[in-house]
Amino acid sequence: MMTQQVEKWGTAELTLEGPAEGNPFIDIEWGASFKHRHRVVNVDGFYDGDGEYKVRFMPDAEGEWTYTTHSNVSALNAQSGSFECTAAQGDNHGPVRVFQTYHFVYEDDTSYFPIGTTCYVWNHQGEALETQTLETLKSAPFNKMRMCVFPKHYTFNKNEPEHHAFETLEDGSFDFERFNPAFFQHLEHRIGDLRDLGIEADLILFHPYDRWGYSTMPPEVDDRYLRYLVARLAAYRNVWWSMANEYDLMRAKTMQDWDRFFRIVQTYDPHQHLRSVHNCREFYDHNKPWVTHCSIQHGDLAQVNAWREQYRKPVVVDECAYEGNIQHDWGNITAQELTRRFWEGFSLGGYVGHGETYLDPDDILWWSKGGVLHGQSPDRIAFLRKIIEAGALVDPIEATWDLKQSGGDGYRLIYFGIHRPGFKEIPLPEEHDYTIEIIDTWEMTIKQLEGTFSGRARVELPGTPYIALRIHQVD
Amino acid sequence: MMTQQVEKWGTAELTLEGPAEGNPFIDIEWGASFKHRHRVVNVDGFYDGDGEYKVRFMPDAEGEWTYTTHSNVSALNAQSGSFECTAAQGDNHGPVRVFQTYHFVYEDDTSYFPIGTTCYVWNHQGEALETQTLETLKSAPFNKMRMCVFPKHYTFNKNEPEHHAFETLEDGSFDFERFNPAFFQHLEHRIGDLRDLGIEADLILFHPYDRWGYSTMPPEVDDRYLRYLVARLAAYRNVWWSMANEYDLMRAKTMQDWDRFFRIVQTYDPHQHLRSVHNCREFYDHNKPWVTHCSIQHGDLAQVNAWREQYRKPVVVDECAYEGNIQHDWGNITAQELTRRFWEGFSLGGYVGHGETYLDPDDILWWSKGGVLHGQSPDRIAFLRKIIEAGALVDPIEATWDLKQSGGDGYRLIYFGIHRPGFKEIPLPEEHDYTIEIIDTWEMTIKQLEGTFSGRARVELPGTPYIALRIHQVD
Repeated sequence: MMTQQVEKWGTAELTLEGPAEGNPFIDIEWGASFKHRHRVVNVDGFYDGDGEYKVRFMPDAEGEWTYTTHSNVSALNAQSGSFECTAAQGDNHGPVRVFQTYHFVYEDDTSYFPIGTTCYVWNHQGEALETQTLETLKSAPFNKMRMCVFPKHYTFNKNEPEHHAFETLEDGSFDFERFNPAFFQHLEHRIGDLRDLGIEADLILFHPYDRWGYSTMPPEVDDRYLRYLVARLAAYRNVWWSMANEYDLMRAKTMQDWDRFFRIVQTYDPHQHLRSVHNCREFYDHNKPWVTHCSIQHGDLAQVNAWREQYRKPVVVDECAYEGNIQHDWGNITAQELTRRFWEGFSLGGYVGHGETYLDPDDILWWSKGGVLHGQSPDRIAFLRKIIEAGALVDPIEATWDLKQSGGDGYRLIYFGIHRPGFKEIPLPEEHDYTIEIIDTWEMTIKQLEGTFSGRARVELPGTPYIALRIHQVD
Repeated sequence: MMTQQVEKWGTAELTLEGPAEGNPFIDIEWGASFKHRHRVVNVDGFYDGDGEYKVRFMPDAEGEWTYTTHSNVSALNAQSGSFECTAAQGDNHGPVRVFQTYHFVYEDDTSYFPIGTTCYVWNHQGEALETQTLETLKSAPFNKMRMCVFPKHYTFNKNEPEHHAFETLEDGSFDFERFNPAFFQHLEHRIGDLRDLGIEADLILFHPYDRWGYSTMPPEVDDRYLRYLVARLAAYRNVWWSMANEYDLMRAKTMQDWDRFFRIVQTYDPHQHLRSVHNCREFYDHNKPWVTHCSIQHGDLAQVNAWREQYRKPVVVDECAYEGNIQHDWGNITAQELTRRFWEGFSLGGYVGHGETYLDPDDILWWSKGGVLHGQSPDRIAFLRKIIEAGALVDPIEATWDLKQSGGDGYRLIYFGIHRPGFKEIPLPEEHDYTIEIIDTWEMTIKQLEGTFSGRARVELPGTPYIALRIHQVD
């Protein structure tokens, strides 16, 4: 039965015994209505194998919730009960939502600035490596992880995964009408691990790098898979739905398919987690109403403002090339360059994602398998994260042809990137006084200039690349 | 009278005495027809002050040339004579022409790859500094100089020039109906100095940075100035006509003005020197028939191929930002970054220009005043020049999503820029053998790999930025 007490934004789970014969994945309809005061939320349940039927729910309000099940079989129908939703504890700030058009926030109003990384299929690497990845994440600066539901077939990624999403027939092919609960249980387990580390799981529902058939399933299987996944995972507060990695490389899918996938997830997710889709070359139209934020692959972060203007949504450039030295240009930039892209993106009011692709004798590259980090950018990203979290939301304040300033109330951030002026004149409002700090984003130093500044302030600069200014209003 | 012997592509000059009263710049029409075998070329003459009238001509064929003058005053009319055009001597290869759509060549078929620099108003700095600039150029790698006819008013450029192009009235204003011959004599002198160093003078006819009125002259003055300049300078083989620096910032001019300027120069230049115009933001339409090559300000050299395709003319990116540390982003990139832009542009079949803008206590910045070079890019540009001159013309050969190759017959150049692959697979034709050299474009080293390569060649690379490959077919 249902747990009697569930933390706010925790996962309430109800398990009932039901029929194991036939095909429960297809034959059985089952779900529950959860009620709190005047509000009723309908939630799909799912079959978890061995005659067990589950429904999960993430309560978002403290107090008593009641529920009633519904099903086309009597064993699962019209069961009811209640549970108590208690206060959120510790680092539980609820799911992440869009905030002030271009930003994010936890549902309890705690600040959330996505600092993402990418380990596409870390969850398909077996216990030892997966544990190592989680250990690495404990001290890494990342609070969002891009990861795939399905395994990956690609250079450096030829290993067979432990689990598959469907029952495997004797001839080795999949029975697309029967999910493999062990596959999804493992996925949930890892999403829960991330949640416990304070990391959002930016979950990639489809991707093109496939030798098993996951990228070319028939529409009815795609749709059933999506509803099953949503039923299982929507009650995890740290889930984001990414329809695809590089959707535009999936030749078997049309734009109508992608629109339909979005609408399915939007319709059946009772908790309305964030939704986006990631491109290779051609952006999906992020203006469509079911897209909550932009998920962008692009190397030119100078365009962040143009994308903000175009889509009027948060801009997450979760792939801008990775620190590494592999043969492909998307995976062989320096730590300096990746750090530069982070600073450029963040200082323009966007959000940038990390990845690491160093050649490895065992083909364990962080970007897909996790493991340990080898690069020099994570320390700099941690430094940036501290600065971002200590500041206000970053939006454009004013720009001349020669200087872009961003920031918020009484707070400005200016980043010079590869440029290395020996001095710069910063136009500040005449009516206030400001302190100015010179930040060396690579050396990770912050030096406050003596005195305060007002009006057109001439700032002497070190004349080296990768310098930023942080400016605070003091009166 | 006329010199009796003139070297091919040298300057023949005929001087006649004529009226000094009235306004010879306006009142007198004067010129000559030069004839060699079946060919007649009509050339404008010009008034050089003190009752002296000159006509200049650059013969392009050896043997006897005859001439006859024509004028609306009898003293200058119907004078005739002849001179002998002798073989070109030494480093005289004639003027530069467009070659094979995207490239250049001297008229005697000697290779010419433009390696330009910029000293906008070096010719307005007085004898000492101008001499120093010429001394610097002797050992610099540059064979093209962007320079203005008119002086410049801008940051770091507030000094008054020695000469002005027009006669100055008592109230300090210009008499736009009377040129100042001393101004033009000095300009010619400097263009001749460059010629003697083997440097093309990419002469900028208008620019917006002005406090004297040169940028806002009435149309009839603009047009008279252009005809006067062409009459004086077209016989210098090293002249290129650049209608403007940043034409799109000159608010007093319309697109019709620019088109007219081109047509005037095209009509009256008997030697048809190269013609282009330089933008700030908006490109002039280089497809127009009077444009011989693209002159581009842009920082993204990856677009060279797109511009080649769009305009089907040589692409000269003569301003891609300068090595330096001034406050403006166009003048504060590192030597590494400028060298990278050079390599990217050249390896894609374009041509890139240099400039240097280091803060200086006396405001002597190479980019506008000349003087001496302080930066680290010129040595690397010299290294690149040797490689370019030792190779074939560079055009795109083949590209995959992950690798661009350029080059010509049996010759390939590949540049990785900021990317630093630990290895790369290079698709080479199966039917030939190739040698491969690894070039560190910053350290200026060339290392030939052992053996030869054919078909899909795996090349181990140092995994550092700024690496190029040079590939030669050996059978």
